Amino acid sequence: MITRKGQATRERIVDAAATLIGQFGVAGTSADDIRKTAGVSGSQLMHYFGSKQALVRAVIVRQSESEASVGHPMLGPLDSFRALRGWADAAVENLAHGSGHGACTLAMLAGSTSPGDEQTRDELCSAFVRLQSRLLEGLRAMRDRGDLRPEADLDELSMALLTALQGGTLLGQAMQSSTPMRASLNAALHHVESFAA
Amino acid sequence: MITRKGQATRERIVDAAATLIGQFGVAGTSADDIRKTAGVSGSQLMHYFGSKQALVRAVIVRQSESEASVGHPMLGPLDSFRALRGWADAAVENLAHGSGHGACTLAMLAGSTSPGDEQTRDELCSAFVRLQSRLLEGLRAMRDRGDLRPEADLDELSMALLTALQGGTLLGQAMQSSTPMRASLNAALHHVESFAA
Repeated sequence: MITRKGQATRERIVDAAATLIGQFGVAGTSADDIRKTAGVSGSQLMHYFGSKQALVRAVIVRQSESEASVGHPMLGPLDSFRALRGWADAAVENLAHGSGHGACTLAMLAGSTSPGDEQTRDELCSAFVRLQSRLLEGLRAMRDRGDLRPEADLDELSMALLTALQGGTLLGQAMQSSTPMRASLNAALHHVESFAA
Repeated sequence: MITRKGQATRERIVDAAATLIGQFGVAGTSADDIRKTAGVSGSQLMHYFGSKQALVRAVIVRQSESEASVGHPMLGPLDSFRALRGWADAAVENLAHGSGHGACTLAMLAGSTSPGDEQTRDELCSAFVRLQSRLLEGLRAMRDRGDLRPEADLDELSMALLTALQGGTLLGQAMQSSTPMRASLNAALHHVESFAA
């Protein structure tokens, strides 16, 4: 059982870790840097997170929640062509202004996870599955409503939207530009729209 | 002036670095591990690469050459719908068999580059620009030949193909599956094909 105060401390640590990882990468961020930024003691850090890897996994969970809403929880369900375009615009906007360069993203976390670190890879995999589910849910509602033709392969379409978001983030951060995100999401959305009833 | 023998030693070092980075990630690979795997002395390593970062940049250059051809140099120019489908199939195949999991990829290198490491980011950026140019060249030939309609935005289409390849690689490695690559490239190719004359 974790107290409310304990929960706040835990969140402060995860926030500090995400901020530092965004600026310096996973490898460039030490447990001690995180401890200092969060303003907690070494024993507090150890109490909540037994290892740096456990902390990175908590950052993955937090980041997947934020990417599911692309920082705009008010966007609501992604269950119309208009909502999907709004989601894509928010992702481009998000990358262009502030949170893209020097931001902690799932794309960056995925690229820096060591192939041998199975636990972290599992957490990443679950994060991607959750993101895809959110997209899939919206597409299913669109098909049920008759906006999408019955033969549309919704698993493939939701995965195409997710890879476009991640590929656009990865290239956008490397090239410091929102052009890759715009191109990737535009192609994926165009593909989804080609199944309009 | 570098001798032929020197060139072979240099390549052996870059090969060893790429293999180890594929298995253990950038952070999990030390200069000493690379030295041992390549069978060179510490002073030889220093002679060719003054720092681990310089070595990572050489791995980026090597990997961008390999991804441009997706391991199939005989594919030739990507200047027809058929050639593009062949390129996509090769990328899916490549990820599914062997070279995907535990392989050194640009997606992984991009994700593990520290945001503050400007030199490495520049090299990555150049690598992505080269890959996009190769795709753009093929699309331009298709438009000139009349396969693509004149209004097709070739910069955007080539970027969509590149982000699909990178996003598919990133998710494919994290999820140990070729499903993301298939979905991402299918959506991007479908978008390109929608501009068929």
